[in-house]
Amino acid sequence: MIEVELAIVGSGSGNAIVGREWAGRAVAIVDDAPAFGGTCLNRGCIPTKMLVHPADVVEAVRSAAHLGITGSASADWHAVQERVFGRIDGNAAASERWRLGQEGVHVVREAVELVDARTLVTASGERIRAQRLVVAAGSRPRDLPGVDPELVHTSDTIMRVPTLPASIVIVGGGAIAVELAHVLSAFDVEITLVLRGERVLSGEDEAVSRLATETAASRWTVLRGRTVVGVEATSGGRRVTLDDGRTLEAGLVLNATGRVPNADRLGADALFDTHDDGRLVTDSRMRVLAGGEVVEGVYALGDVTSAHQLKHVANEQARVVRDNLRGIPTEDLLSPVPQAVFGHPEVASFGTRGQDAPADAVVVDRAYGSTAYGWAMEDESSFARLVVSRDGTILGAHVIGPHAAILIQPLVLAASAGRGVHGLARSLYWPHPALTEVIENVLLDAEKELR
Amino acid sequence: MIEVELAIVGSGSGNAIVGREWAGRAVAIVDDAPAFGGTCLNRGCIPTKMLVHPADVVEAVRSAAHLGITGSASADWHAVQERVFGRIDGNAAASERWRLGQEGVHVVREAVELVDARTLVTASGERIRAQRLVVAAGSRPRDLPGVDPELVHTSDTIMRVPTLPASIVIVGGGAIAVELAHVLSAFDVEITLVLRGERVLSGEDEAVSRLATETAASRWTVLRGRTVVGVEATSGGRRVTLDDGRTLEAGLVLNATGRVPNADRLGADALFDTHDDGRLVTDSRMRVLAGGEVVEGVYALGDVTSAHQLKHVANEQARVVRDNLRGIPTEDLLSPVPQAVFGHPEVASFGTRGQDAPADAVVVDRAYGSTAYGWAMEDESSFARLVVSRDGTILGAHVIGPHAAILIQPLVLAASAGRGVHGLARSLYWPHPALTEVIENVLLDAEKELR
Repeated sequence: MIEVELAIVGSGSGNAIVGREWAGRAVAIVDDAPAFGGTCLNRGCIPTKMLVHPADVVEAVRSAAHLGITGSASADWHAVQERVFGRIDGNAAASERWRLGQEGVHVVREAVELVDARTLVTASGERIRAQRLVVAAGSRPRDLPGVDPELVHTSDTIMRVPTLPASIVIVGGGAIAVELAHVLSAFDVEITLVLRGERVLSGEDEAVSRLATETAASRWTVLRGRTVVGVEATSGGRRVTLDDGRTLEAGLVLNATGRVPNADRLGADALFDTHDDGRLVTDSRMRVLAGGEVVEGVYALGDVTSAHQLKHVANEQARVVRDNLRGIPTEDLLSPVPQAVFGHPEVASFGTRGQDAPADAVVVDRAYGSTAYGWAMEDESSFARLVVSRDGTILGAHVIGPHAAILIQPLVLAASAGRGVHGLARSLYWPHPALTEVIENVLLDAEKELR
Repeated sequence: MIEVELAIVGSGSGNAIVGREWAGRAVAIVDDAPAFGGTCLNRGCIPTKMLVHPADVVEAVRSAAHLGITGSASADWHAVQERVFGRIDGNAAASERWRLGQEGVHVVREAVELVDARTLVTASGERIRAQRLVVAAGSRPRDLPGVDPELVHTSDTIMRVPTLPASIVIVGGGAIAVELAHVLSAFDVEITLVLRGERVLSGEDEAVSRLATETAASRWTVLRGRTVVGVEATSGGRRVTLDDGRTLEAGLVLNATGRVPNADRLGADALFDTHDDGRLVTDSRMRVLAGGEVVEGVYALGDVTSAHQLKHVANEQARVVRDNLRGIPTEDLLSPVPQAVFGHPEVASFGTRGQDAPADAVVVDRAYGSTAYGWAMEDESSFARLVVSRDGTILGAHVIGPHAAILIQPLVLAASAGRGVHGLARSLYWPHPALTEVIENVLLDAEKELR
């Protein structure tokens, strides 16, 4: 039996809770994943971006003829992998070693189940009794119904394959699917995307999703309105059967149909309230509920509870939990929540989508190509879209094109401060001719439209 | 004799003054430059950036070995030139045609001199009598003392040369010098920079300037503490003599030693007050002064008056003048003034430099390489620096590295709104793992340092 003041299930954002104020106190950090540090560091945002960046460089050259550039580029999978995982695995190991060396900290590398709101039992039968508990157990790739998980890769495994196939079938069209398609494409893997719906990034603004889909269709084979009903091993790799009976042959299959919260993995769903999709319900202080009542001393954060499967949200929630554990009743109220997809094109957005805009709101689009830097890039499709209420409040922002994830930041800042569009663009300089002029101009467009 | 309500000397930002409210009224727009539209459009910010972007792509491939990428790229000068000037010259011509077609607008394509504060005389002897006058005559490249201007290029001409030389001597180390060195380098021109001082971008923060100089020295031959005392034509191009007697042989010479205001070109310096460097003095409403008194109805804007030779400042001043001409007493008070240099590395900055920071201010640096996207880029040198007063006011910001001109925008927004660093980073989301995390973290660093 291990007795601790605090047990945290999950070594991702949950790990950040154990700050200076816990020095020397008994804490358990529980994670049975092969690497310490959570999804983002080991299997998510960070390694994908470390793969996306070289893919961006390769793609930039391959599509530079319209700029007057001839050239070629290819990326070496082994070299890139070695660089990416050399750094990441090193970081994960160092982080684990550091925790292992801390007095009072128990690092438990086993699966656990909750016996009650204060007691965990490990796979090997050890009990952990905690005065307070944080469920930060993250999420896992959703299974493909009717398909043997052993026959398909997920984002957990695809980045570690020793050799890339000549072709791949990617099931799904969300952020993970389009980022990895972009990456693998740069490594000359032939891509087939199988979409259940009609578009990739279907959770994004309609115009954004439409442009992302057009770009995808111009680079890859995109099959729409189809589901995968079976996958079998062949001599060459995999045979995928679709719901219309058609079959596809490919070296590998990547299941990128989404992620499900891990509440059920530790039996938290049996003890605490959950949403329909299996996420734990919390109040604004990240305290879990049972029967609609706050369970004192038990918190949840990140993918296991959040509607946003985003690392920056999990980190913010970890700060909220850390404060609450210190007796500071901080709430998780930060808004809006931006998200970015580092595909090709890049997408960033927050808030209300064009198709959901109130009837009296204005929706304005500004093409990169209407600004000087857009000319420099010879950009013909990228744009920024704002959804603005009659009183000038920024309800939503949507950017698709190069550097979208950076370009959106001034809008996040303004919206978070409750600053509306009236007079905003003209209250500061936008260095000419930087690409931020797209943002300056979409703000001016919105003001004009409201007049 | 042409009689007009308004005469504007300069068709750059000055041209923007003639809005809807002037429809049908007698206006003269005067510019003797070969192309209509001013320096930025025809010979400045815009064509340079249209050349910088392909240079960035070429450089990205050439320096991608550390990312696991092998490749090559070369840019075709004729193709790039055709694209750039095809678009720019077309725009300039269309803009001029549009003005020529407007009732009441006189487009005067001659050099002019001021006879008095209301009267201009053209080179061919025509008089223009204006009720109100705007001097928006811009600036021109500074001559190289003791050197025949016919033997050297400036930014006015270098981008239009039909064939690039194998080598070039660039005199100067400011924004124009480093941007054009970066461009020409991508087209395989061998570069020698001759610096009067020890560093390129010596007007920037010291650490920024130092890093920019190191990068320049790693790519090009950089001669420091030297001035050019003579240039002569040779069979192979040009021979440059330095103040230490040394000579350099090169295909061409680019004089990029800075720009001087054009007040003297039209005799405005004889009628109105000037600063020591020849710029016209104005009040905050952009009205020129004579003998320290406001001259009613005469305005100046842009490089002819501004301490900042920046298009976004000229545009803002044009808005101020336009308002004042409409009877709205707007002032030019927008602050801080950011600037960007689109070299390699890119630089953006505003406000107080590290070396000028008050004794009790804090100066904090954050490396790109300390963030996840910096890992993705394998960046080892880029950084953001903040200069913050004891009360948290952002006095200055300095970014050197990829996308600096975009990354600095949230800081411009915060500083313009008078928002200090306390609580700022945590008042909004910074999408993980976008490069904006460099900005988030330098803000957090500043807060920590102030505690």
